[in-house]
Amino acid sequence: MAILVNNHSGETKPWVDALAACLPEFELHSYPAIPSNADIEYAVVWHHPHGDLMNYPNLKAILILGAGMDHINKELELPDVPIVRLLDPAVGDEMSQYVLYWVMHFQRDYERYRQQANIKQWQRFKTPLAREYRVSVLGAGEIGRYVSERLAINGFVTQNWSRSKKVIDQVQSFYGDDGLKTMLASTDTLVNCLPLVDSTHHFLDAHKLSALPKGCNIINISRGAVIADNALLKLLDSGHIAAAALDTFTLEPLSDESPYWQYDNVFITPHMSGATYPSLASQVIADNIRRIENGEPPFPIYIRPLN
Amino acid sequence: MAILVNNHSGETKPWVDALAACLPEFELHSYPAIPSNADIEYAVVWHHPHGDLMNYPNLKAILILGAGMDHINKELELPDVPIVRLLDPAVGDEMSQYVLYWVMHFQRDYERYRQQANIKQWQRFKTPLAREYRVSVLGAGEIGRYVSERLAINGFVTQNWSRSKKVIDQVQSFYGDDGLKTMLASTDTLVNCLPLVDSTHHFLDAHKLSALPKGCNIINISRGAVIADNALLKLLDSGHIAAAALDTFTLEPLSDESPYWQYDNVFITPHMSGATYPSLASQVIADNIRRIENGEPPFPIYIRPLN
Repeated sequence: MAILVNNHSGETKPWVDALAACLPEFELHSYPAIPSNADIEYAVVWHHPHGDLMNYPNLKAILILGAGMDHINKELELPDVPIVRLLDPAVGDEMSQYVLYWVMHFQRDYERYRQQANIKQWQRFKTPLAREYRVSVLGAGEIGRYVSERLAINGFVTQNWSRSKKVIDQVQSFYGDDGLKTMLASTDTLVNCLPLVDSTHHFLDAHKLSALPKGCNIINISRGAVIADNALLKLLDSGHIAAAALDTFTLEPLSDESPYWQYDNVFITPHMSGATYPSLASQVIADNIRRIENGEPPFPIYIRPLN
Repeated sequence: MAILVNNHSGETKPWVDALAACLPEFELHSYPAIPSNADIEYAVVWHHPHGDLMNYPNLKAILILGAGMDHINKELELPDVPIVRLLDPAVGDEMSQYVLYWVMHFQRDYERYRQQANIKQWQRFKTPLAREYRVSVLGAGEIGRYVSERLAINGFVTQNWSRSKKVIDQVQSFYGDDGLKTMLASTDTLVNCLPLVDSTHHFLDAHKLSALPKGCNIINISRGAVIADNALLKLLDSGHIAAAALDTFTLEPLSDESPYWQYDNVFITPHMSGATYPSLASQVIADNIRRIENGEPPFPIYIRPLN
């Protein structure tokens, strides 16, 4: 009974240690130091080298150790075993808190108060109440739901869009092309939680971003390439988009040459909105491995998009 | 049936208009243009000139049109009628959202990310989860409760202190001198919601502020004079207090000479955390006037402290 572990974009050792503490009955091997491919029953991976997962004849499941699925979507061939997403409540909490922070930043215009304070100016101005402030969330997957729910419990007028109809408590749901058009037109801050797949590449293009009211703000916590950078930059230049809080970019780390750095009204964070902590996430992964060992289905099983 | 209206630190007309819409059966008079003192049954006031409220022989109640009670506490003599506080849910929402914003600002260290972005640096660092971050709220009055509840529903380790024992859902309550000592020692961000009365003047002095762990942050949304400015400035200088978000000051507007303006780690806002909006607050005040007219008690009746 052995588990392959590979956190290919970071350190693997903390994951091996945390998983070992949860699953003492298993041997844990850091990729690429695998003594015997035939022993590997589970692969706990992130950005694993393409094609390698075909090399383990007794693999029972692939468990992803982060929130994004874009890397695994690019595999040309995978063994016929369940792919298990990481549904870590701590990540949902942090991402939704990140969004709430920036929504409040825009709603109360804290940037203007900060600029005022820099010149010792004392002036109160009227800002909308949360109950008057419309936040639109794109995507009703796990993160989109978390984000929408947190905004709603904090009193914001919360709207959510997804391709097909979804219901979220205290949130007004929109779906389809018409729903998107309606929602975009009545938005104060737009939050992107759409996963990156072929159909969402540059989903937020010049056409859709222009459909937002003038003065709207943007928050992106999913993947940079869901937004067409050139379109966003143009609308920032024209003032149609008032400000943006961007945690994710087409290329990361964001290069020194990116024009985004030049904008005072673009708040750049280094993809930190929902960090995955090995100590917490390993418990979720270990629970899923135990479930499979007991003949129960892991949760949530991921279905790769067909495109 | 007439009502005296006086918003002595701002505009009175929006209050007259908003109250007139709620209470069409009453005459409304802007102080000091009062045709007949004997006609006045209700006084809706904020920072009303001291002593004047003794001049209305048929007064039934004094209704305060803001959240603070420090001005009315300074009256030497008042008629023997109920003083009714303004309990406006919109104000509680806004003040608690203000606190949540700054708590998140400190918890996730957004200031450091902002400084990083200024020099095009892309680096993620570990910050505590909300469930590991201890926020201590001083005061269990209306605003202290609102603030504590909002922090708790957003997952923060929330602690609350008041002089006598209080119970708030999902919040660890402390009381008395020993309770204060215990709570201060285990605090990441301290939030002041204590009202200003004689016993809370300079309540947060050098002794109590030094009892906080090194690196602690301060948020003040009640009254500036609850904090001993010199003590706070010294502890900011030494680095014992890491940062402060101050919405309220001993003297307002904050003078150009205040040393607070000089600190990069002091975030100054112009007493905007809980603005009172005539349109919303007038409904609450009108409800209380109707209650008195119907022989029911208004809510909440204020008991002035004896000191």
